[in-house]
Amino acid sequence: MAEDRFARGWKTVQQINGSGAQAIQDALKDVAPDFARFLVEFAFGDLYSRPGLSLRDREIATIAALTAKGDVLPQLKAHVEGGLNVGLSKDEIVEIIMQMAIYSGVPAVLNALEIAREVFAARESSVNSP
Amino acid sequence: MAEDRFARGWKTVQQINGSGAQAIQDALKDVAPDFARFLVEFAFGDLYSRPGLSLRDREIATIAALTAKGDVLPQLKAHVEGGLNVGLSKDEIVEIIMQMAIYSGVPAVLNALEIAREVFAARESSVNSP
Amino acid sequence: MAEDRFARGWKTVQQINGSGAQAIQDALKDVAPDFARFLVEFAFGDLYSRPGLSLRDREIATIAALTAKGDVLPQLKAHVEGGLNVGLSKDEIVEIIMQMAIYSGVPAVLNALEIAREVFAARESSVNSP
Amino acid sequence: MAEDRFARGWKTVQQINGSGAQAIQDALKDVAPDFARFLVEFAFGDLYSRPGLSLRDREIATIAALTAKGDVLPQLKAHVEGGLNVGLSKDEIVEIIMQMAIYSGVPAVLNALEIAREVFAARESSVNSP
Amino acid sequence: MAEDRFARGWKTVQQINGSGAQAIQDALKDVAPDFARFLVEFAFGDLYSRPGLSLRDREIATIAALTAKGDVLPQLKAHVEGGLNVGLSKDEIVEIIMQMAIYSGVPAVLNALEIAREVFAARESSVNSP
Amino acid sequence: MAEDRFARGWKTVQQINGSGAQAIQDALKDVAPDFARFLVEFAFGDLYSRPGLSLRDREIATIAALTAKGDVLPQLKAHVEGGLNVGLSKDEIVEIIMQMAIYSGVPAVLNALEIAREVFAARESSVNSP
Repeated sequence: MAEDRFARGWKTVQQINGSGAQAIQDALKDVAPDFARFLVEFAFGDLYSRPGLSLRDREIATIAALTAKGDVLPQLKAHVEGGLNVGLSKDEIVEIIMQMAIYSGVPAVLNALEIAREVFAARESSVNSP
Repeated sequence: MAEDRFARGWKTVQQINGSGAQAIQDALKDVAPDFARFLVEFAFGDLYSRPGLSLRDREIATIAALTAKGDVLPQLKAHVEGGLNVGLSKDEIVEIIMQMAIYSGVPAVLNALEIAREVFAARESSVNSP
Repeated sequence: MAEDRFARGWKTVQQINGSGAQAIQDALKDVAPDFARFLVEFAFGDLYSRPGLSLRDREIATIAALTAKGDVLPQLKAHVEGGLNVGLSKDEIVEIIMQMAIYSGVPAVLNALEIAREVFAARESSVNSP
Repeated sequence: MAEDRFARGWKTVQQINGSGAQAIQDALKDVAPDFARFLVEFAFGDLYSRPGLSLRDREIATIAALTAKGDVLPQLKAHVEGGLNVGLSKDEIVEIIMQMAIYSGVPAVLNALEIAREVFAARESSVNSP
Repeated sequence: MAEDRFARGWKTVQQINGSGAQAIQDALKDVAPDFARFLVEFAFGDLYSRPGLSLRDREIATIAALTAKGDVLPQLKAHVEGGLNVGLSKDEIVEIIMQMAIYSGVPAVLNALEIAREVFAARESSVNSP
Repeated sequence: MAEDRFARGWKTVQQINGSGAQAIQDALKDVAPDFARFLVEFAFGDLYSRPGLSLRDREIATIAALTAKGDVLPQLKAHVEGGLNVGLSKDEIVEIIMQMAIYSGVPAVLNALEIAREVFAARESSVNSP
């Protein structure tokens, strides 16, 4: 059962941001290996894997929330990448972030747009490299 | 121009939650009438009315952000109503709120689910009343 | 396995605040029954039940965090009750809350002390009633 | 010395909102009497009493911060009253609150304007009562 | 009209922090040019330009709010500079930040004072350079 | 009296994190020397020095709160060090941080665990250096 939750979560997180998920597993493996497991089981096995909402819709929610919170920029970066991976366009991601000005103010939006700009630029340059 | 922004915003906000918008206009009309106007012009005229994202997608973002923020429950209520109005199902709204446990913790989700429960119950009872 | 996680979590949460936990299960049973289950499994089965920290120490952490967050007073109330149930004294709970003035400022402390005062008064009156 | 800090703080807080300060002292006197004293000594004796900034300027700062934080409405109410007492006009207080839309978003402003409206209405009615 | 709002906002923001405003316009010009425009129109054209409060008073409010929020240090830096530009002294800015210990706790103040120290040092060194 | 508060606070803070406290005093000595003094007097002289709670218990509260707040990582680092100094084990600190996933979500925990990992690694390497 528990293995099922991990396996299901790991499969889902690969669709969103596999390298980001692996980096978190690596970072946690000495300091808190159980939390690394809980994260995949609970966040991705229990929640993201549920059939009631598409991964695209789930990433709209996550990008909005992380922008609004404002103090979790590394995680926002991982989900801007995730959003692109599950079908959001760059323009849609910018729309989501801009809308947060209404709910969290301008500074949170400026900091989030800078993250988006960096992710978009990195994609651009990896596409253009030989 | 400014009139256009207000008109455009007012039209958009009617699709989301017209009675909620009217209630805010009424509440602000003595204390801060200019802010009542800015709100329609900026939030709904400048941002929500943009063509790059559907109102359904915009409400996913807003419900997620207001749940994650945690301290703006009256506005969350207005947007749970708005989400239903622009095509989100009750189940989808519950999925969005539950997912926020990952980003803002359990208490924020419990408080938001209580709001959703109240909105759903009010709809139910208004549908069932003769 | 999943049943084990729920059973373990339910047993742990009974030691902290059984009636509070039951009230949450009841409140969620129509709107989000799966979240009611996740909450027991993850928060209390996976985390609170771990042997590395006593329930008394865990409640110090929770009362501190909920005071510092400031916008989750219903959950703070449940954990002031929980803290008393697992061995914290009233004076210790007041010390924890007061200390948060350093990290979250005075208003958060004032609002939390009012919650503590209400919980202490309710205990007093239930002890004194015939 | 400590007595001086309390005396100085108490004198300052009388200029801002004497009845509000007394209400807090009363509320804390059983649950946390030492915190009641610290609050006057530190917040008002050490900080508000400093000569480097007028009480009017200090209340601009406090009303702005409490609006931006969003989850401390009882304290915001006390300082809207305080701001009026130390020379801010109703219009200036509304300007300060509206400006926070830029930094904390619209919901925080709406909730703060409702507090301001209530305080202004209470003043109005007490002025007009025989 | 819209042009008027931008022009009015741009003129106001020049008085506060012209180079900071230009840097934001440059940073946004590829990723979200419309938001760059909204920011000037709404924040500075609609709000900061209003006659009801001096720019000095407005910067007291903004420095207080950004200190209290705690997670928007780049924007705080821009407004410490802005505060000096519109007539606040270094000592007054330090007073505003210190007072926030009451409302947001000590860590937020320490992080804000470090920002202020850096801005003051940069001014000092630019004044002293030949 | 005031001298007593400082002396008492300074003695207490030496038990928690003497070098961290000295670094803060040094950082503040030009920009806000009075705040440097208030910090020792109020936070450590008035609050941490109180006999009603052990320093180990106080550090549980502080590590929990700073993890939950999420935007004060330099202060969290100082108190992970402080927690180790007053008797918390590395495993206990990790337990406290992990538990905060329930109250503040996963990103806050990930960022806090990275801080803990750095502190633990620095201790390890200073123990192992000749």
